[in-house]
Amino acid sequence: MQKSYYSHHVFFCVNQRDGGGRCCQDNDAQRVRNYAKDKVKQLNMTGKGQVRVNNAGCLNRCSEGPVLVIYPEAVWYSYVNEDDVDEIIRKHLQQGRPVERLRLGDSSPVTR
Amino acid sequence: MQKSYYSHHVFFCVNQRDGGGRCCQDNDAQRVRNYAKDKVKQLNMTGKGQVRVNNAGCLNRCSEGPVLVIYPEAVWYSYVNEDDVDEIIRKHLQQGRPVERLRLGDSSPVTR
Repeated sequence: MQKSYYSHHVFFCVNQRDGGGRCCQDNDAQRVRNYAKDKVKQLNMTGKGQVRVNNAGCLNRCSEGPVLVIYPEAVWYSYVNEDDVDEIIRKHLQQGRPVERLRLGDSSPVTR
Repeated sequence: MQKSYYSHHVFFCVNQRDGGGRCCQDNDAQRVRNYAKDKVKQLNMTGKGQVRVNNAGCLNRCSEGPVLVIYPEAVWYSYVNEDDVDEIIRKHLQQGRPVERLRLGDSSPVTR
């Protein structure tokens, strides 16, 4: 596999569902994503060959949310707040060690 | 590496830049993304272990846009219209062969 354009490409689900179903934005996902983007920038980790933090639409793991996924390694996380994001940045993005306590498995049901 | 939750996770940049700078939405990226999502659904390729087609914010390759990226393989494409997306679905997603004529290299400049 060729080198990825971004070493780590992070996608935060910031979807707001209509009709009251559980969704990531219920937990203020946009605020936490903005925090993550700013933090990565402060740490000079942004740009080609480094890290990109993106908004994304519904990633379809609503019942496990709020969720984010990091590619190309395809590691999924559920987080609560900025402290969790700090840990993901420090351990996963900086040290290359997934944060097992926040990691989502692949056995979870598809929610819709 | 463990198996990816989605075999192919497709992110379309649907960003609309302020101020008149070139961006993917200039080329009606949202329309083409919606087309791709519907097409993949019609082909029964959606869901866990299969394909997911997402909206994403600015992927920061604006000057090469409109762009999409497919993970975990980290293959980037620039497309013009639905015909290009059909080819990406047929060759890349169904047959596992990247569409070289639409593929973006990793040597492109960062645009901002």
